[in-house]
Amino acid sequence: MNFKMIRYTLGIILLFLSGFFAIPAVTAAVYAEWPSLLAFLGTAALTVALGVLMTYRRPKNTKLYARDGLVIVSLSWIVISLFGSLPFIFSGSITSFVDALFETVSGFTTTGASILPAVEDMPRSINLWRCFTHWVGGMGVLVFVMAILPLSGAENMYIMKAESPGPEVSKLVPRVKKTAIILYAIYIALTVVNVLLLLPEMPLYDAACTVFGTAGTGGFGIYNDSIAGFSPYVQIVVTVFMLIFSVNFNSYYLVLRARFKEAFTSEVITFICIVAAAIVIVTLNLYFGGIFTALGEALRHAAFTVSSLISTTGFAISNFNDWPTLSKTVLVSVMFIGACAGSTGGGFKVSRIVILFKGMTRELGAILRPRQIKKITVDRRPVDHEVVRSVNAYLVTYVLIFVFSVFLISFDNYDAGGYNEMVTNFTAVSAAFNNIGPGLEAVGPTQNFAFFSPFSKLVLIFDMLAGRLELFPMLLLFSPTTWKRSKI
Amino acid sequence: MNFKMIRYTLGIILLFLSGFFAIPAVTAAVYAEWPSLLAFLGTAALTVALGVLMTYRRPKNTKLYARDGLVIVSLSWIVISLFGSLPFIFSGSITSFVDALFETVSGFTTTGASILPAVEDMPRSINLWRCFTHWVGGMGVLVFVMAILPLSGAENMYIMKAESPGPEVSKLVPRVKKTAIILYAIYIALTVVNVLLLLPEMPLYDAACTVFGTAGTGGFGIYNDSIAGFSPYVQIVVTVFMLIFSVNFNSYYLVLRARFKEAFTSEVITFICIVAAAIVIVTLNLYFGGIFTALGEALRHAAFTVSSLISTTGFAISNFNDWPTLSKTVLVSVMFIGACAGSTGGGFKVSRIVILFKGMTRELGAILRPRQIKKITVDRRPVDHEVVRSVNAYLVTYVLIFVFSVFLISFDNYDAGGYNEMVTNFTAVSAAFNNIGPGLEAVGPTQNFAFFSPFSKLVLIFDMLAGRLELFPMLLLFSPTTWKRSKI
Repeated sequence: MNFKMIRYTLGIILLFLSGFFAIPAVTAAVYAEWPSLLAFLGTAALTVALGVLMTYRRPKNTKLYARDGLVIVSLSWIVISLFGSLPFIFSGSITSFVDALFETVSGFTTTGASILPAVEDMPRSINLWRCFTHWVGGMGVLVFVMAILPLSGAENMYIMKAESPGPEVSKLVPRVKKTAIILYAIYIALTVVNVLLLLPEMPLYDAACTVFGTAGTGGFGIYNDSIAGFSPYVQIVVTVFMLIFSVNFNSYYLVLRARFKEAFTSEVITFICIVAAAIVIVTLNLYFGGIFTALGEALRHAAFTVSSLISTTGFAISNFNDWPTLSKTVLVSVMFIGACAGSTGGGFKVSRIVILFKGMTRELGAILRPRQIKKITVDRRPVDHEVVRSVNAYLVTYVLIFVFSVFLISFDNYDAGGYNEMVTNFTAVSAAFNNIGPGLEAVGPTQNFAFFSPFSKLVLIFDMLAGRLELFPMLLLFSPTTWKRSKI
Repeated sequence: MNFKMIRYTLGIILLFLSGFFAIPAVTAAVYAEWPSLLAFLGTAALTVALGVLMTYRRPKNTKLYARDGLVIVSLSWIVISLFGSLPFIFSGSITSFVDALFETVSGFTTTGASILPAVEDMPRSINLWRCFTHWVGGMGVLVFVMAILPLSGAENMYIMKAESPGPEVSKLVPRVKKTAIILYAIYIALTVVNVLLLLPEMPLYDAACTVFGTAGTGGFGIYNDSIAGFSPYVQIVVTVFMLIFSVNFNSYYLVLRARFKEAFTSEVITFICIVAAAIVIVTLNLYFGGIFTALGEALRHAAFTVSSLISTTGFAISNFNDWPTLSKTVLVSVMFIGACAGSTGGGFKVSRIVILFKGMTRELGAILRPRQIKKITVDRRPVDHEVVRSVNAYLVTYVLIFVFSVFLISFDNYDAGGYNEMVTNFTAVSAAFNNIGPGLEAVGPTQNFAFFSPFSKLVLIFDMLAGRLELFPMLLLFSPTTWKRSKI
């Protein structure tokens, strides 16, 4: 374990974070929100000081192993969450430390679950910071750092691997740094297009906040009714862009290079099919269930909600907790499926489901023909045995963390106010772990997470981080082997 | 596919089944239940006739492949369920065919979920038949046939593999037939001991019915309040025996051979630890939650209910749907864990969880030390790569069938009468698929499955069969490859 290099990298992350505070600070100055301005400047000063202290001495040995990469990623996310929550506390917007941490982790991990009962009461700069954390966390903080800093060579792949969602990370171009730059360029370009499409309907501040939440597939809103108050045009734009940001960014790169056929990977096609099927079922269910009398209305609400949940954004335009059981079952299912690998979305990831499904059919084939065992292929390329094994281990880890989290939260003696507690706990963990935001019942789209005990909130904070960083980096923090001084 | 041999084996199964009808027929004669007697004799006559017809010509080619073995197992179970449901219809006890089939499948698969609102209204012989199907299905119909008939050699292993629960089947002795005899001898011996322990407290009829449900880990009762009306002594005996019947029968064989150390496999130890932990948590939760004011009462109810659900029996002495959320979460969790492999219990099986957990920790180790990949070992023996792969595929298939079943059932527009429909559907599938019986809310221990639509009942029938036969045999019936005439 290269402790010096970990310290150094965390210092760099802090310096970058201090730069991010400039945007809400400027907003605070524009809207003359002086306590918030002080809070952002104070936090920035603290962050810079600590960052300089930690990067003052560059370590001689810059070699990083897989283990170091994973630890750097998980510690970085913990560090930015801790410092990112300070403006909430310094400005007095959120008084409890656990609540401030919950809100910040929910922001960076692009979950969008909030402990705030009324976001409209918040200063505008604070709300911008909440939404901006989604945008920063969406593509990844360390990927951003790698895009800018001239970090040394090959070992950065470990960091990228740990921070990027999905079972396989394909470098678009041979160099990690250039890959990171391309990804961020696509990200920024799509963000700008999205803002431009919204500007005719709302001021820049509203558009920016909404797009930060869309691009990061986060879901924090700046209005108490999420984005239900916006026009159907805005809601349709958001629907489309939530889906756009849940597709593997590699596909956009391939489209830009005119390699259209390659862009439509089996993951992307599967994703499109799942989204279409879910929208059709929910639309018909809402229409024939009498929730909406016009088919168009039913379609708009179904498309928005399915897209919001499968992309793991979590915006809401209707209280889907009151929808029929069939629709709710479909919605909970797509919450677990999640987005494509290599997007800003969370969840289990479509590519993992594709690999697991092929593994299952191969096993069925092996039972019928025990002597013919084929390798799994995806997009006509054989999938490495290591990847299949790792995806299987991912599923087991996922189920274990999920069940254990629900168990820990069920110790909570909150007052559910007539809501079903089993569904609340199950969907609260699902919403946090899959980085979505709202769940059902007491954590439904019109509710918030404030009523949970600090202990439950800490469990959910762990789930949000574990979900965003794809389980293993967070889990390894708890393994004694990780912290041994031995070289490998 | 050796169709002639399949036809022949199914005929043998029918002949055996006709023999099983003797026991309820005698009961009907004793209690002078003439319509039931006629129903049993009529079904037996029909079964014998068809059995004789199908076994009249013994096929020349008796060779069976893996595929044939799987098809024989799944078709046998469908056939015995169809013919086993006839007495219900002929006697007029159950008028709907789907309901009769549901009740019979629930019996043979040792699920114990009932569509009957009041079992006390049933003739005694019919109730005995319900309970007796548990006992027959518990250890397996084909294993029974193999124990008695001189079937030819090695290919029987495929059948045994397909019908016995768990990831690996170890032959206790080199010959399959002798293994089957030993297993049934242990099964019968434990059943007799259990009956003898209950006889001081109740008539033979009650004792036999209760023990059939316990031994098969089924859970059909003969009283409307399950076994809540029995004395604490009886309830404690049942608690102990539900656990005894959920331990791998191999362990009992090893104990008889004085190989005590080998008997305590890591699966058995894990099972004991899970049961103990669950009982402690639920006991304390019931006591401090104010459900029971005496710690002893809380312990008895917690121990009974945890044992009933982890053994997948499903007997009830209290309405655990009214228990606190923590207890219910623990109960739902143990429903999924299930019993040990090679027992009469259902669920996911402890040995699979052990293998998956070791696979997960190996993967975490592989991330830390990419160049050192160790084989998984259980009880100091390395686990075959094929077994690990198959257990992983099992988990994927399990999750897929589970989610798809919940989805199909959510189309049902039943009147839940104030109960939560999401929890009802989730636990109904869980109870059927894990072969338990009761779930929560509208399928809680004081409720029944009658309100579901025929379509939902068919889905649950499939789940019960798939759960009992460990997924693959039932799934393969739907694969076109299975039915191809090619040799392998």
